[in-house]
Formats: sequence, C-alpha cells, structure tokens
Amino acid sequence: MADNDKGLLMVFTGNGKGKTTSALGLTFRALGHGQKVCFIQFIKGSWKYGELESAKRFPDLLDFHVMGRGFTWKSDDLEKDIAVAREGWEFAKKIIAEHRHQLVVLDELTYLATYKMIDEQEIVDVLTGRDPSLHIVVTGRGAGEKLCRAADLITEMRDIKHPYKQGIKAQKGIEF
Amino acid sequence: MADNDKGLLMVFTGNGKGKTTSALGLTFRALGHGQKVCFIQFIKGSWKYGELESAKRFPDLLDFHVMGRGFTWKSDDLEKDIAVAREGWEFAKKIIAEHRHQLVVLDELTYLATYKMIDEQEIVDVLTGRDPSLHIVVTGRGAGEKLCRAADLITEMRDIKHPYKQGIKAQKGIEF
Repeated sequence: MADNDKGLLMVFTGNGKGKTTSALGLTFRALGHGQKVCFIQFIKGSWKYGELESAKRFPDLLDFHVMGRGFTWKSDDLEKDIAVAREGWEFAKKIIAEHRHQLVVLDELTYLATYKMIDEQEIVDVLTGRDPSLHIVVTGRGAGEKLCRAADLITEMRDIKHPYKQGIKAQKGIEF
Repeated sequence: MADNDKGLLMVFTGNGKGKTTSALGLTFRALGHGQKVCFIQFIKGSWKYGELESAKRFPDLLDFHVMGRGFTWKSDDLEKDIAVAREGWEFAKKIIAEHRHQLVVLDELTYLATYKMIDEQEIVDVLTGRDPSLHIVVTGRGAGEKLCRAADLITEMRDIKHPYKQGIKAQKGIEF
C-alpha cells in the first residue's frame, strides 16, 4: 500500500458549496484504490448523514469520526465548546501520529482556528510534522494565512448562486 | 424513495480542483440515503479510477458510465470526437428522460458545449425539461451563460495554489 509519493496538504476553503463534498469525493476515490482513510468531522454534529451510511460499505478501509456535539456559533457554553474542540483536535493529532491511514480528512477544522479554540500555528506544526507520505485534506471557510502558506493545494469554493437565496429548502441527499 | 423535494440543477465550474470530486461526494452522500445515482463521465477516458472501484460497493444503487475514449483537446480526429460526444449526450438524455435515478451527474459536460460539439441551448432545454424532482450535477470549466442562468446552484472552484505548479506529480488516490 505504501508508496513513495509525497503526501499533499490540500485545503478546500471559501463560502461556496463543495468543500466537504470534495473531501468526501477524494475519500471514496482513495478507498477505491484500497487506501485507508480517516475522515474526522469537527463541526457538524450528531445527526445522521448520507455519508455515514455510505461509509458502512467500507468497514475495512474507512474510519469516520464525528467530533463535537452539533457545535454552532451561537452556543451558550463557550467553555464546553472549547473543551470539545480540543478533544477533537487531540484525537486528530493521535490519528496523524499513528499514520495508519493514507488520507486523513479534517473536515471543518478551519473554524477551530477562526474561533481561537486551537492555535493556527499548532495546527500547522502538526500537519507539516506528519509522515511525508500522508495526504491531508482540511476543509472550512476562512482558511488562515499560515495554513495556506503550508498547503500544497488550495481551492477556493466561491458561491456564485445558491438555492437558499431563492427560497429553496435544504434537500435530503444533497445538503445532508 | 421519491419525495416532493424540488430537484436542483447544480453546476461546479472554475479552474480549480474539486469539481468532479464534489460531484463524487454528492454521489456517495445520496447513495447513503439509498437514492439511485447515475454518474456519467463525458471526458476522462478509459483508464481505471478509484471511483470505479468504489462504485462496485454500490451495485444496487449506482450506475457509472464512462463515455468517450479518452477525449483530449489535441485529438486529430475531430469528427470522431464529435460523434463520441453526441453518443454520450444521447445516452444522458435517455437516462434523464427515463428518470430511474434521483441524481444524475454529468461530469465534464461543459466541454461539449465549449467545443461546440453539443449546442448549449439543447443542453439547457433537456436539463430544464427533466422531471422536476430529479437532481442534476454538471461539472466542468467554463460553464456557459445559459447553463448558469438555468442553474439553481453554482460553485466556482478557484485554483489558488496547485501542486503541479510546484513540480509535484499527480498522486494515485488523489488525482486519479
């Protein structure tokens, strides 16, 4: 399984749809190659996703973890939010250090830096200190400058047109 | 399976990575909900993808079709390219008309319009004439004005930083 390819640090940021879904697409592409993937969802909470069901078809290759408990930006318990964020980050650090996967997705990790729950420099240090063959994907709006400097690839997903603005509600299978 | 949700016409365009991978992510999300998906790849040719292997785990729900024969922009047989493109498009029209799926992905369809192989207005007519509950994803650079006007959602994937520019070669499981 291991090869000598350089592991890429990829960042999907911007205000448009497609960040998490791109990471999911990369996940299923890697799984198709028989690569092991760890997908860690930092923010979106405890409800059931289509991807959780799809993940069940890859029990041998895919580890899917949902951290936090439906963290929102309006929480009335900031200390608890920070504790949950730190717990998630410590878990991610462990996964990266163990290097049992070829791809680790840190979905919506940027928010932890944006909201100062985790220091951006600490994130960059962990990511750049990984085994050089490990691929990492970070998603989330507002990727910070240090993270972007460290990244090998950055795509900004720009919202050009969005159905919510036209009064169409979220769709099962598309949005969640 | 059927519900009364409005089917969305989603367009992933722009010069950055993440268009096809987003469509793949949506595919696996929809599959997780038990929805039927038809994924039609118009351009990328005949070689083996990670997603083809992943697709095998969803034989009950996912139809994956690769049209064309490794179409490139440097083909020396334009007439054959046009014939292959038309054949692919006729197949897509049939799939859309049959409405056996909840999501149809038309991966890299934009190129067929860009290179005047298929008339953009014809594409828009077929897409807007679909069953109103059917979700459609169109990917590819340079989505045309008519298509964008018809779309419910457009994300532009902007290339901010790309590893090729830094001399890193394409990676198995990430790029293909």
